[in-house]
Amino acid sequence: MRKNQHTIYGINGSAAVLASKNYKIIDVFIQSGSPAERDGNITKALGYHGGHIKFIKPTLFKTKFGKWRTQGVVVTFSGQIEQPIPSFKSQSGNIGLLVLDRIEDPQNLGQIIRTAECAGIAGIIIPKHESCGVTDTVIQVSQGAFTQMPIYQVNNLNQTISNLKDEDFWVIAMENSLKAKDWHKVDYSGKILIIVGSEGRGIKKLLLDKSDFKATIPMEGKTNSLNVSAAVSAVTFERLRQISS
Amino acid sequence: MRKNQHTIYGINGSAAVLASKNYKIIDVFIQSGSPAERDGNITKALGYHGGHIKFIKPTLFKTKFGKWRTQGVVVTFSGQIEQPIPSFKSQSGNIGLLVLDRIEDPQNLGQIIRTAECAGIAGIIIPKHESCGVTDTVIQVSQGAFTQMPIYQVNNLNQTISNLKDEDFWVIAMENSLKAKDWHKVDYSGKILIIVGSEGRGIKKLLLDKSDFKATIPMEGKTNSLNVSAAVSAVTFERLRQISS
Repeated sequence: MRKNQHTIYGINGSAAVLASKNYKIIDVFIQSGSPAERDGNITKALGYHGGHIKFIKPTLFKTKFGKWRTQGVVVTFSGQIEQPIPSFKSQSGNIGLLVLDRIEDPQNLGQIIRTAECAGIAGIIIPKHESCGVTDTVIQVSQGAFTQMPIYQVNNLNQTISNLKDEDFWVIAMENSLKAKDWHKVDYSGKILIIVGSEGRGIKKLLLDKSDFKATIPMEGKTNSLNVSAAVSAVTFERLRQISS
Repeated sequence: MRKNQHTIYGINGSAAVLASKNYKIIDVFIQSGSPAERDGNITKALGYHGGHIKFIKPTLFKTKFGKWRTQGVVVTFSGQIEQPIPSFKSQSGNIGLLVLDRIEDPQNLGQIIRTAECAGIAGIIIPKHESCGVTDTVIQVSQGAFTQMPIYQVNNLNQTISNLKDEDFWVIAMENSLKAKDWHKVDYSGKILIIVGSEGRGIKKLLLDKSDFKATIPMEGKTNSLNVSAAVSAVTFERLRQISS
């Protein structure tokens, strides 16, 4: 497979990719008689991609794509999903960015992208190294949300955080320590960065030292700690509550 | 495999099962020299299960369990995980129960159990039909949280909700409709039931009609709706915020 070539399966994700102007559509495979063939969002988007559509009989479609949950549509496309981070200097108001430090599981990254889009986050910052990239699994789990959520890939997280602090962002680190405040006692208004670490290893000390506030979600469970994407949901919706109240 | 016989892989889940008195341990497989062999929570729990422990050489362990992420420990056990719902009549204070209507994906059920335990939910109610049961995948995804979170399986959700209303529970349905209040404008204190429906089909009308309040999480995403386990995280932590403020 070529570099920057991706495949997405299913109605939601395919419709999002077909509706976006950011990607070059290679092929749109549609199973004849499938739910996708009758789906309004798919048929509407198909008009722009006439030359790339291939209708395929159910038996052949199942041979090619039977391993995945397709709902009868598979799209291959190319394009650069990760992008360089822009300057936010001239922007003001409530801008929430997520910084993911060492999130290596594609399921978690995909779910975080999906949740962040619903919770009104403006962008997700991931490092080039020691992090899951935007793989086809991530794309798939995000259910098309990656087409709306800027994913900024940076070489040096530490430097990026410093730059954003210079652009008037406050830095909130999610960390379970005695010094951390309860997650709902932190002020999320204005320009903020929320740093989230990996489940096993937390946030790197270098980055933690850059934070203005530390926020913790009490882990009331006796046996387990919160999944990182569940933690992101709790925190990003608490932000949304605060800025919309 | 026998009825009610289960397998769990990995340190967290295995330690939770070994520490619980609710299950009959069949076998504890430990890979010699693995992280599990040195893990304090595992070795502490092993004392009670001496006769069932089998140390296995790495090559054989990999042949048997190489498909899973084991961290060097696999436990087989038997026991009834789902239980009948008790009466909550004599209990008072903040008691939050989750009702899951037609959640069929084991990943979602497992994540919801895990999140609910951390957010201080007292129990999860699932119907016997049209719902994912507590399969080995659910057990695995819950990371051992199922040992601490009562899972009440009922024949008739509608009847169960009526009974709980008679025991002074207020019923809150998570539903995206114009008549629903924002999720953070609902009062979650006292005895409450939170009904959550499936991503595709929502909550059955019969159950919706029983609700005292409807709560919605604004779906700010352009392309996707929130994953049901992310929605549960946002709502159960909002409840925790309210009752601990």
